Amino acid sequence: MSSSAHDIEEGLAFTPKFGADGLITAVATDAKSGEVLMVAHMNDEALRKTIASGEAWYYSRSRKALWKKGETSGHVQRVLELRVDCDQDALWLKVEQQGPGACHTGRRSCFYRAVPLGKAGSTTLEFRDADKVFDPGKVYK
Amino acid sequence: MSSSAHDIEEGLAFTPKFGADGLITAVATDAKSGEVLMVAHMNDEALRKTIASGEAWYYSRSRKALWKKGETSGHVQRVLELRVDCDQDALWLKVEQQGPGACHTGRRSCFYRAVPLGKAGSTTLEFRDADKVFDPGKVYK
Repeated sequence: MSSSAHDIEEGLAFTPKFGADGLITAVATDAKSGEVLMVAHMNDEALRKTIASGEAWYYSRSRKALWKKGETSGHVQRVLELRVDCDQDALWLKVEQQGPGACHTGRRSCFYRAVPLGKAGSTTLEFRDADKVFDPGKVYK
Repeated sequence: MSSSAHDIEEGLAFTPKFGADGLITAVATDAKSGEVLMVAHMNDEALRKTIASGEAWYYSRSRKALWKKGETSGHVQRVLELRVDCDQDALWLKVEQQGPGACHTGRRSCFYRAVPLGKAGSTTLEFRDADKVFDPGKVYK
């Protein structure tokens, strides 16, 4: 292992590794239940704003824009803890989700469908925890 | 919303969206504790093998190779549930981690350091749950 890789993994200097697109993967989990709410991305500015404010900011790849989670819906994510992984190319946010849900489809989590296991070639998903907890048509005008 | 976006979000057809690099992000959490163990990537083959076997396979970007989690260390991940997110570009694996840990550094989780919040410009991490639970020097010959 190079000394640099050792520093990244064992050191206390925060040196987030953004991809070629300038983004780093961020996973938000519900701090109480451990449920994964969403997987999103941050650019350097989103990360700085998240650290400074304690509320989650992301970068939308589809809209190509910085984005405060909840800026339209009010469903802000209060960050209780922010962690970085061994090679510093992924972030984990333990959040307190304000409002009923994190997903723009109206669900609590974006992960409301399961892929059946053990069935090679099967492509039919199954709904899990898929009840809509808010009406996205009303929340996003 | 185009009918295609609606189908991706509300339908039951599994149409995983791999990136330009042929990879999809996969988050593995401990099925019991909800702790995020690791964030990794799968190519189409890794995903197929995971679904068929019920054990986690990934694609290593650094080694550019398909990789069965635990093939060297024995620290296999039994997948209890596999979920896909709203736009089908991220996967969540709820796993039963075999052996003491998931991280190649010897920790249970790859996320053993926290980024302090509320301190703009601060770059000093803090160790959290950072005890080594196995000796990577022995496990990876």
